[in-house]
Amino acid sequence: GSGMDCAVIPLKRHKDYLLIQTVDFFYPMVNDPELLGRIALANVLSDVYAVGVTQFDTVEMIVSTSTSFSEKERDVVIGLVMKGFQNSLKANGYRNTPLIIRQLKINPWCIIGGIATSVCRSEEIILPSNAQPGDVLVLTKPLGGQMAMDAHLWQLNQTEKYKKLLSECSDDDIKETFEIAVKSMTYLNKNAALLMHKYQAHCATDITGFGLLGHANNLAQFQKEKVLFQINKLPIIKNVLKFSTLVGQSTKFRSGRSVETSGGLLICLPADAADKFCRDFEEATNGEQKSFQIGHVTAANESDAVLCEDVEFIEVSL
Amino acid sequence: GSGMDCAVIPLKRHKDYLLIQTVDFFYPMVNDPELLGRIALANVLSDVYAVGVTQFDTVEMIVSTSTSFSEKERDVVIGLVMKGFQNSLKANGYRNTPLIIRQLKINPWCIIGGIATSVCRSEEIILPSNAQPGDVLVLTKPLGGQMAMDAHLWQLNQTEKYKKLLSECSDDDIKETFEIAVKSMTYLNKNAALLMHKYQAHCATDITGFGLLGHANNLAQFQKEKVLFQINKLPIIKNVLKFSTLVGQSTKFRSGRSVETSGGLLICLPADAADKFCRDFEEATNGEQKSFQIGHVTAANESDAVLCEDVEFIEVSL
Repeated sequence: GSGMDCAVIPLKRHKDYLLIQTVDFFYPMVNDPELLGRIALANVLSDVYAVGVTQFDTVEMIVSTSTSFSEKERDVVIGLVMKGFQNSLKANGYRNTPLIIRQLKINPWCIIGGIATSVCRSEEIILPSNAQPGDVLVLTKPLGGQMAMDAHLWQLNQTEKYKKLLSECSDDDIKETFEIAVKSMTYLNKNAALLMHKYQAHCATDITGFGLLGHANNLAQFQKEKVLFQINKLPIIKNVLKFSTLVGQSTKFRSGRSVETSGGLLICLPADAADKFCRDFEEATNGEQKSFQIGHVTAANESDAVLCEDVEFIEVSL
Repeated sequence: GSGMDCAVIPLKRHKDYLLIQTVDFFYPMVNDPELLGRIALANVLSDVYAVGVTQFDTVEMIVSTSTSFSEKERDVVIGLVMKGFQNSLKANGYRNTPLIIRQLKINPWCIIGGIATSVCRSEEIILPSNAQPGDVLVLTKPLGGQMAMDAHLWQLNQTEKYKKLLSECSDDDIKETFEIAVKSMTYLNKNAALLMHKYQAHCATDITGFGLLGHANNLAQFQKEKVLFQINKLPIIKNVLKFSTLVGQSTKFRSGRSVETSGGLLICLPADAADKFCRDFEEATNGEQKSFQIGHVTAANESDAVLCEDVEFIEVSL
């Protein structure tokens, strides 16, 4: 979300500190519970990374089991979700961060969510309001993760949509696309946040439910100066645009409005830093992730985010 | 809940501070949405009051509308719930506390919850682990609020249980009982927390879903010394014990295990402070609330909480 999704609250009683807090919930949309836990973590932390904060004082996981689960399902499935969440936290350098797991027992549907809290000094925070005309827009994950996951579910359940995909794609295509999406959606935006400081990023937001253009527009509205975010490239996970065309859902992709889960950061960087940021990002992620210069910032009478008419689609493998 | 429900986390990066955080969710069980909002607030803040903290750096309200609501119901009902939550926060001295309201749009059932966060110095916190043999147990709200609410709902819906109540009670009895419960359940445990400091309470917990004896037992387990919590009085809202008998649900009340929503604090106080605490509490609440000396703490081989055999039931009007 935009800066609005993450509370940044000056502590009145402790002048030098600010409280950063985010809450996120989402529904399972993956077949593999351990994977679901890892995506949930990436999702919860993402709003905090978007303001450049990379240290947490506490992370809380909130799980509501579905009342339709059997006791065994409940224990096994929820256990695996927790394990994925917890292991990913540890593996990403947060071994000493207190993790509280809270199970709600009140819901007919399975919901996974969490809270991340950080008490910071102001220099740790990059407020989402300082975009400058001339900035370059960098996106740190390709789009289409959710659609790649969906295609994999269609494949598992042998649905009508799966049959449509088969007219032009193979089972291996679907599997490969799914694996790229897994890599991307479980990846924490931590390195992106760290490099925001190194390259003096002016602001950022993370890409989730409103799609790239929706979040870009939110971020634009948040700026002190009136700015236009012009987007001229859409990096999309390999095969996803083709899948979306085959099932008649490509309009959202072509207009930059596809719903994303655990998307990357959209960052406004000084123009001379953008190349270096992207190179450094690929290096910092050991070549496992890529970032993309997808547009630029100009002065404007009204803040807005637009897609250029001749927008270029980039197919991304990871 | 016990000390476990409220996270008390030393901030590694800011040595003098601790982070206090609690999350709470519950289902609507009241007919009046504004009232529901006020009870929800009392419920959310209660875990923090239980550790003696009375100042908040941020309060977040989480509401998930039911998908079965019409758009109008959604706007009106949820609006009133928010209003109740917000107004109660303001009316209780938290006019300047940042309140974030977050609406989830993903749930078939209506859920109300919240998060309360406070960054504190250690002297603000009364850890739930220092009960001493000789302490007196004080409870700051009578039991039975949930049953009083239920009886009122049965009355409104003219259910079979309502007809059972009518065999020995009048409509006015049900209404009066409901009003006592409303007064109690919407009352914040703030004054109780403030007086815990004044009278150097040794520890406390708040009474919710596990019932008085369940929470007393949790608190006992939490103590550094092995202690027995002996409970010899059960203060119960007027008529509630009678209601519960008429509908065949009195066992839980007689055994101290009735489920409570937005219950009071159970506090371990030095014996010579208990009388003064109770007098001061009634004064601080302008006579609107009462507290009760319900038992005492003795040394033991195993920590436990028990009901005395000749436990006395006290009928409480407010």
